[in-house]
Amino acid sequence: MEPSTIARLDHERHDRTGVPEVVFAAHKTLDQNLTLLRALHERAGFAMATRVPADQRAALAAALALAEIEPLSGTLRWGRLPRTGTRVGVVCAGTSDLPVAEEAAFTLDALGHDAVRATDVGVAGIHRLFDVLDALAACRAVIVVAGMEGALPSVVAGLVRAPVIAVPTSVGYGAAFDGLAALLGMLNACAPGIGVVNIDNGFGAAALAHKIACA
Amino acid sequence: MEPSTIARLDHERHDRTGVPEVVFAAHKTLDQNLTLLRALHERAGFAMATRVPADQRAALAAALALAEIEPLSGTLRWGRLPRTGTRVGVVCAGTSDLPVAEEAAFTLDALGHDAVRATDVGVAGIHRLFDVLDALAACRAVIVVAGMEGALPSVVAGLVRAPVIAVPTSVGYGAAFDGLAALLGMLNACAPGIGVVNIDNGFGAAALAHKIACA
Amino acid sequence: MEPSTIARLDHERHDRTGVPEVVFAAHKTLDQNLTLLRALHERAGFAMATRVPADQRAALAAALALAEIEPLSGTLRWGRLPRTGTRVGVVCAGTSDLPVAEEAAFTLDALGHDAVRATDVGVAGIHRLFDVLDALAACRAVIVVAGMEGALPSVVAGLVRAPVIAVPTSVGYGAAFDGLAALLGMLNACAPGIGVVNIDNGFGAAALAHKIACA
Amino acid sequence: MEPSTIARLDHERHDRTGVPEVVFAAHKTLDQNLTLLRALHERAGFAMATRVPADQRAALAAALALAEIEPLSGTLRWGRLPRTGTRVGVVCAGTSDLPVAEEAAFTLDALGHDAVRATDVGVAGIHRLFDVLDALAACRAVIVVAGMEGALPSVVAGLVRAPVIAVPTSVGYGAAFDGLAALLGMLNACAPGIGVVNIDNGFGAAALAHKIACA
Amino acid sequence: MEPSTIARLDHERHDRTGVPEVVFAAHKTLDQNLTLLRALHERAGFAMATRVPADQRAALAAALALAEIEPLSGTLRWGRLPRTGTRVGVVCAGTSDLPVAEEAAFTLDALGHDAVRATDVGVAGIHRLFDVLDALAACRAVIVVAGMEGALPSVVAGLVRAPVIAVPTSVGYGAAFDGLAALLGMLNACAPGIGVVNIDNGFGAAALAHKIACA
Amino acid sequence: MEPSTIARLDHERHDRTGVPEVVFAAHKTLDQNLTLLRALHERAGFAMATRVPADQRAALAAALALAEIEPLSGTLRWGRLPRTGTRVGVVCAGTSDLPVAEEAAFTLDALGHDAVRATDVGVAGIHRLFDVLDALAACRAVIVVAGMEGALPSVVAGLVRAPVIAVPTSVGYGAAFDGLAALLGMLNACAPGIGVVNIDNGFGAAALAHKIACA
Amino acid sequence: MEPSTIARLDHERHDRTGVPEVVFAAHKTLDQNLTLLRALHERAGFAMATRVPADQRAALAAALALAEIEPLSGTLRWGRLPRTGTRVGVVCAGTSDLPVAEEAAFTLDALGHDAVRATDVGVAGIHRLFDVLDALAACRAVIVVAGMEGALPSVVAGLVRAPVIAVPTSVGYGAAFDGLAALLGMLNACAPGIGVVNIDNGFGAAALAHKIACA
Amino acid sequence: MEPSTIARLDHERHDRTGVPEVVFAAHKTLDQNLTLLRALHERAGFAMATRVPADQRAALAAALALAEIEPLSGTLRWGRLPRTGTRVGVVCAGTSDLPVAEEAAFTLDALGHDAVRATDVGVAGIHRLFDVLDALAACRAVIVVAGMEGALPSVVAGLVRAPVIAVPTSVGYGAAFDGLAALLGMLNACAPGIGVVNIDNGFGAAALAHKIACA
Repeated sequence: MEPSTIARLDHERHDRTGVPEVVFAAHKTLDQNLTLLRALHERAGFAMATRVPADQRAALAAALALAEIEPLSGTLRWGRLPRTGTRVGVVCAGTSDLPVAEEAAFTLDALGHDAVRATDVGVAGIHRLFDVLDALAACRAVIVVAGMEGALPSVVAGLVRAPVIAVPTSVGYGAAFDGLAALLGMLNACAPGIGVVNIDNGFGAAALAHKIACA
Repeated sequence: MEPSTIARLDHERHDRTGVPEVVFAAHKTLDQNLTLLRALHERAGFAMATRVPADQRAALAAALALAEIEPLSGTLRWGRLPRTGTRVGVVCAGTSDLPVAEEAAFTLDALGHDAVRATDVGVAGIHRLFDVLDALAACRAVIVVAGMEGALPSVVAGLVRAPVIAVPTSVGYGAAFDGLAALLGMLNACAPGIGVVNIDNGFGAAALAHKIACA
Repeated sequence: MEPSTIARLDHERHDRTGVPEVVFAAHKTLDQNLTLLRALHERAGFAMATRVPADQRAALAAALALAEIEPLSGTLRWGRLPRTGTRVGVVCAGTSDLPVAEEAAFTLDALGHDAVRATDVGVAGIHRLFDVLDALAACRAVIVVAGMEGALPSVVAGLVRAPVIAVPTSVGYGAAFDGLAALLGMLNACAPGIGVVNIDNGFGAAALAHKIACA
Repeated sequence: MEPSTIARLDHERHDRTGVPEVVFAAHKTLDQNLTLLRALHERAGFAMATRVPADQRAALAAALALAEIEPLSGTLRWGRLPRTGTRVGVVCAGTSDLPVAEEAAFTLDALGHDAVRATDVGVAGIHRLFDVLDALAACRAVIVVAGMEGALPSVVAGLVRAPVIAVPTSVGYGAAFDGLAALLGMLNACAPGIGVVNIDNGFGAAALAHKIACA
Repeated sequence: MEPSTIARLDHERHDRTGVPEVVFAAHKTLDQNLTLLRALHERAGFAMATRVPADQRAALAAALALAEIEPLSGTLRWGRLPRTGTRVGVVCAGTSDLPVAEEAAFTLDALGHDAVRATDVGVAGIHRLFDVLDALAACRAVIVVAGMEGALPSVVAGLVRAPVIAVPTSVGYGAAFDGLAALLGMLNACAPGIGVVNIDNGFGAAALAHKIACA
Repeated sequence: MEPSTIARLDHERHDRTGVPEVVFAAHKTLDQNLTLLRALHERAGFAMATRVPADQRAALAAALALAEIEPLSGTLRWGRLPRTGTRVGVVCAGTSDLPVAEEAAFTLDALGHDAVRATDVGVAGIHRLFDVLDALAACRAVIVVAGMEGALPSVVAGLVRAPVIAVPTSVGYGAAFDGLAALLGMLNACAPGIGVVNIDNGFGAAALAHKIACA
Repeated sequence: MEPSTIARLDHERHDRTGVPEVVFAAHKTLDQNLTLLRALHERAGFAMATRVPADQRAALAAALALAEIEPLSGTLRWGRLPRTGTRVGVVCAGTSDLPVAEEAAFTLDALGHDAVRATDVGVAGIHRLFDVLDALAACRAVIVVAGMEGALPSVVAGLVRAPVIAVPTSVGYGAAFDGLAALLGMLNACAPGIGVVNIDNGFGAAALAHKIACA
Repeated sequence: MEPSTIARLDHERHDRTGVPEVVFAAHKTLDQNLTLLRALHERAGFAMATRVPADQRAALAAALALAEIEPLSGTLRWGRLPRTGTRVGVVCAGTSDLPVAEEAAFTLDALGHDAVRATDVGVAGIHRLFDVLDALAACRAVIVVAGMEGALPSVVAGLVRAPVIAVPTSVGYGAAFDGLAALLGMLNACAPGIGVVNIDNGFGAAALAHKIACA
């Protein structure tokens, strides 16, 4: 399959915007994903895909020997960008939010940054957050991942100097409405200096942190 | 005007449920409200109204010499129930939430309880909350009033033993959607033991605290 | 697996808030749930999990010989707190709402209280409710579980002195919108003294009743 | 002004459907409303308008000497249809719902029927409803008007044989969402045999009762 | 299984309201449904269930030899009420709406009425409706079933004298939002005299027609 | 005031897209609107504005002697494009929808086309529509304007060969939700060949008809 | 099976509206679809179906030897209308939107027009769109298919003279809300001259383009 | 008035988070706002307020001689932080979005940064954006303000290396739903590296840019 028959790859995107083009694999066939990843890697020595369907992971891993796949989120990277030495916090409210947090952390690592993780520090036991404030103080940006009421970014943004990137997750049930409650909570955070991304969009949060770190 | 032509007063409600019938004054005329308050007071020596329209307050105060009106919320009480000695916390996230918090505190006082206020302790500066924890520890219930993201009840419920009554307010703009964001946040609080009432319903929160204290 | 790699257990939550930390099992693996339950039980001699996935129940029951699992809701308890002698009503509108009501009743029992059940007393045949009023009169709090239009808490709160905890359920179809209709109905109940929890959140209702009973 | 320049009056609607054409006056000028009412009355000796703007009422009353205007709802009738002797219940949950109930009752009277009113019988004091059941038993249909949680139609439909027409009102605040909560509640009523009309649509409820009575 | 352990059957509902109690089978086990149907039939010689799960139909048919199951909707009836000779129209916009229309027609038949069907007469080819107007003219009520934009009840109510019962269906996709578009359309119909029931609620429409016919 | 300080006028838009740039006057000051209209007219001998605030109309009319303002909608045109001889239908469901229909008709006329009006032909009296079908048969496109349930475009599109442009209006109340019901109805129309524009957007409908006529 | 038992085919629709009746196959059985397609083809020598269920495609292809099925969307055509020589653009934002774009292109071809495709020209790399502007300049109408934020129609309508038909798709996740975000974006496009169809409705877009081309 | 009676000022917020505490003046009285601004300025030599009510501006300007008020948005600053030399882009889609853009630019200036404005560069005339790309290339962050469909951030983020902060505005009507359409569009932007803030929240966007510039 020729990539040009299914997509117009935007090879200059990395130069233009600082973020390489990445394959959104969720609704594509194995052949399409393989074709696109190879075309990107051939040009740039680097390729990534997000949301690789579970039933394509083994085949992609077999076909692309040097690619790595993060298992919780299905993120794939083939190569890594040069290390920048920049630290970015990845704060996760609960264990159930880990797939989104891992998508962010794995992407940060692929783009050359060091992810500083803090997991299960939700607001129901707010003291757990204070234990990690020192580690977060050294970060260039802090990604905060939370579902349910999505309150954690407000608290974090009131405690750190770095810009906060808030990621609502679809964790919860009932009136969580698949992440809507967390999304609205984060958009209305009373602490200023928070940028919100789409529900479950760990990759987008990492891309924003990357732009903050590199622009 | 005879009260029976506009309403069937439920004089036995106090005995049956522990909460006296209260006039919801918002959509009623001055004559209707006067008639109903007098009928209630005549039977029980006590009458209350919530959301008295601003343009009826002077006339009601003139007509009912012993009635008091809380100015921020327009709550009216004519008499007070006997003191119970019970303390109930009224925690308020921001100055803009004060009308709702005062409706709750004024109602608590009318029903015989002591309101323990803590104002402007929102999660953007979470340390301010710790200063009032000791005062809250002595409360039979804690009402938490917050708009915007509505995160404060989660944090409070993770720190106190008393049941938490969460009141979302319509404070905010844009994606606050007139209190919807705060309401959803409180319903999805990750800390258990929270009962939520309607947006801006300070009276309802006080009534629930009263039932908790007296049942 | 070490619990510290997947969660920061909040062992002091019971002392701080009166409610022990409980595992939300829905999105976790069998290994994660086993690890967390054992860690909690080792410290406190008591552990609970809600929403245990159906395909993990047999394995958990086999691994934790003394644990009990409520079959309708998938709630697990390993040990029980000391009996308090407190009665809490669990009023259920229809047979279809039973899984949520049983989650509440099983949790109440685990936390030491006596659940007083009244099932299938929905408002379409309101006389059925009057039969159980005497039993409810002895309760410290009354949990009311209803789907569809969610009208039952209003009626109950107009008849009993105890605080009412309303639990909307996702029972219904069409314009029930997965419990939204019942939730809105309960938040707008014309009878005061009702605290609402999230859709289908029987556990949360029991935790609030526990706080009311014990604070 | 010629009516034909602003509307195509449907003079045959009464014969075809049993309900005469009625002017929806809310967004029309005084001249338009006068022109249309006169054209209808000239043909049929009867004319009605709903939601007459407050600032047009005096002028319409002066111009149409025999017209009557119901003050709470702004409904106008010029003439009445022959008496049918049919009784229709108009049950109203609270005093604040009266404008909608009066629109229904006044329309019923204009169309020839006898409205049997029962006001302030909301579910928070359910015993008040039992006092009026005998009067409702003689009705050909029962219109139930309620705001807030809109629970009353379910209870009424579980107690009477007549078809129930449910009218949600925009009475309430916060999560009432201008009548949405009551509307959803009525659509999900657990008692069968209820037809729902639009929020605040007392006229439509009366028209449906009229069709039930006359078809 | 004793019925009293799972439900409080409301055997007097038929006398009180004119509609017998009916089992909502969707969320119940085979044992529960069998138990309830037998208990109802034993008392009244008649029993019905709606939304029987597909995997219980064969077993119910085998166990209850005289019961009939309508295949499109899964409605079950065991016995029929005496014939009334009343005709009720069942107008269906499209072939895809047939399951809901058949639930209504089958229920009408069970309750003793004659369903007059008109199928595939949607507004995109409005002339098809005119062919059936004569048949509808003899009906005591007309049920109109439509999905997508839900426009058909408005047109029908402008053409017939009988009361119109509108049933929105979840047929459609995208901005149909599972029947919400049709529901809103029907609630806002510009033709008066329409009562709306819940999305896909063919049974409720038939129950309302039954009350109209028999009250 | 220099136009360049408040806007970058897109003078080439007419050549590029066939539709001239038009001023959206609603949120602008009188000075801004005057400045922009003069700048556009100076370049092209033609200028238009939509939604001119009521309190600016007299001043604009005085300042721009040759401009005309349509009074119902506040649309302003200063000059007209050459006549094309193309006819475009403007079908309006009810008298209350006239402001939106007139915005469309006035814009069509300004852009050189002949508007063929048909007013008050809503679906509650569907026969009125048949009277105007011949006139519509000669139109290059048919704009259909309707509020409430928004059913008219479906019926029209089932009867004419021309493309139908559907304009939902905010006419209605309650569950009309300011035009949402009509919008959803039109998007789900069962008759194919309908393009929908924003609620109350008569100008946009005319612009689309213009593109259809001229492209 | 006789077609008349399941549907009233509208054979005159093609003459009346210019668009032949087409089977919406999604909720029909194989027998129903076969019967309807054969009845349509017998009368007109042409038949189409949209959204053929995946599990019916092989059987339909075997039974109707000359029918073709577009695999991504499940659109079936049996015969083609005469060629018109009209070109219609089909612009597709991303590879994931292809099924909807192919439904449009395949339908256009069936109705006699030439689809001019431009794929993967989303706004994140806006230069890719400029490459295809010349090809679009020769089109009678331009269909623009996009999910996520749905921004592409605005940009295209600002660059071409042809009318733009916007098709939102359900591609995306989280706050895309199954196409709602794209739908709202397209309805609010700042460039005039855009008609919007339902989410994922490639067929409807092609039908509108057909009417534009042929009326 | 003592500030401590109405608020607990968080004087350490600037040190802790890099952003000074700012008064949200919208729901406060003149006295409250004066008291709070003086208390903040006394401690830090700098004070700001957002959304100053129009009727308080003259009095505040008179009382605080050195304060400046931005007239479109009602933002007040009393003093400015030291210049950083950092440039931040403020890109504004249309003239109607200027109040929000000016709130952002004025805040940036107060916090020490240089705002680089580009106004009226909406996507309907995308070439206007290309003229300002060079100016944006020198910016540390780019704030993009847009209402209606909110498409501009996607396009900008595909063209610049700096992180993009997207601000939806409530400009529009109908299906814009007071900014909801723009908000959803920005959250679903297909270009990565965008952080979204609340509707109309120009201040929040500037605060995030400040954190990006200074952290």
